[in-house]
Amino acid sequence: MPQNVYDDPDFFAAYAGLHRQQQGLAGAPEWPAMRAMLPDDLTGRRVLDLGCGYGWLARWAEDAGAEGVVAVDVSTRMLDRARSFADGGRIEYVLADLDEYSPDGPCDVVVSSLTLHYVADLDRLLRACASSLTPGGRFVASCEHPIYLAPYEPRFVERPGGHEWPVSGYQREGRREVEWLGHEGVVKFHRRIDTYLGALRSAGLALTDLVEWGPSDDDLVEHPEWAPELERPMILLLGATPAHDDAHDDA
Amino acid sequence: MPQNVYDDPDFFAAYAGLHRQQQGLAGAPEWPAMRAMLPDDLTGRRVLDLGCGYGWLARWAEDAGAEGVVAVDVSTRMLDRARSFADGGRIEYVLADLDEYSPDGPCDVVVSSLTLHYVADLDRLLRACASSLTPGGRFVASCEHPIYLAPYEPRFVERPGGHEWPVSGYQREGRREVEWLGHEGVVKFHRRIDTYLGALRSAGLALTDLVEWGPSDDDLVEHPEWAPELERPMILLLGATPAHDDAHDDA
Repeated sequence: MPQNVYDDPDFFAAYAGLHRQQQGLAGAPEWPAMRAMLPDDLTGRRVLDLGCGYGWLARWAEDAGAEGVVAVDVSTRMLDRARSFADGGRIEYVLADLDEYSPDGPCDVVVSSLTLHYVADLDRLLRACASSLTPGGRFVASCEHPIYLAPYEPRFVERPGGHEWPVSGYQREGRREVEWLGHEGVVKFHRRIDTYLGALRSAGLALTDLVEWGPSDDDLVEHPEWAPELERPMILLLGATPAHDDAHDDA
Repeated sequence: MPQNVYDDPDFFAAYAGLHRQQQGLAGAPEWPAMRAMLPDDLTGRRVLDLGCGYGWLARWAEDAGAEGVVAVDVSTRMLDRARSFADGGRIEYVLADLDEYSPDGPCDVVVSSLTLHYVADLDRLLRACASSLTPGGRFVASCEHPIYLAPYEPRFVERPGGHEWPVSGYQREGRREVEWLGHEGVVKFHRRIDTYLGALRSAGLALTDLVEWGPSDDDLVEHPEWAPELERPMILLLGATPAHDDAHDDA
């Protein structure tokens, strides 16, 4: 049975209050880096959004001219909220567990924001995506960076002049249960960076981009409270394309 | 002026006592992973070893049939020691600073063990290597993992039931001065993983392998004292090949 804390009303209320949910892509500081990995023009493209949440990425893709967008989430409550922003357009909302979901037809772009670390069987999901991606297609995803996710007790510790992020368990991949927004036992899966790269390769996807996102100097002027983010990366961004296309592009 | 603590007699004496130096490749637990990235057969290959130290890798390459091996190090003392193990064979020892060195002819395999993090201008060195690598050639290197190298105060901290490795400064790349073997102010350069990948790509090298090395269960049976190594990776292994060859291989 899939984990679905989002259908818990208390959790959902807390989640709905997050800056990131209220502000959409403008509230996601890593969005410019993710945008840079996506095709310049989405006109006529079929886009798949894995773990769509409020649907910000799906609506961005629709606005950017996508021919159709499939937005998948495990939470009925989340999909209802997404529909409340935009319904009846070119976005199809699909209720599904990403540990079982496979795309229902070809797509040109797969996007996924901060979702892969909730997926238990990443190899299966990436293979399913790869087999649906058209030649020259793009897979672009963000997830929690393993430095952020690995520790058995994730937290900042103050030190003279700054913060430290004590890492533990980096080489012990797998299940982590953390408290989030007052909800105990939120389940995530820690994977090393080389494991992500191996999963992409095994699925037939060639890495095009890898970014260990951190705030820029400009970000810090606007948000000085983000300074601790310089001590460790929170978000890993991955871009890939079907391997044989990549070879043809270069040849 | 290049950093060269190895020509300090006290430092060298301490260095010479390290398990890794005394045992050679057998004392380098990451060697099997590195070996797996290298060509199965070195017969007739020209090999370049960047930061050869005692010359273990260079002698391995010679034994494995390499037509010629160029072994580069910044330390006269180190090269003398390497020559004391094997001289007059197919290994040419070169005294050079890797921030200025460029290969003096084509080579088929570039290897480098735990050296790149001492190089200030990685982009320059990788471009120089890439332009000397023959089609289908291999670049295989290990370096200190950024989780290991980033912290302003690198050390394990005990916690209930294990150890933590407090990370700081991950997003602040550049110079680190650390104490090593009683020598203060050993200079290293912290780079994120995405910076290493970007440097390879900019040099025209396509990533073939990335391993965040950690001890296996078998390693831990033999060396239970390595258990803290499970908490964070110490060594990053990178493999690459000239980009266009890679494309042709796949096409």
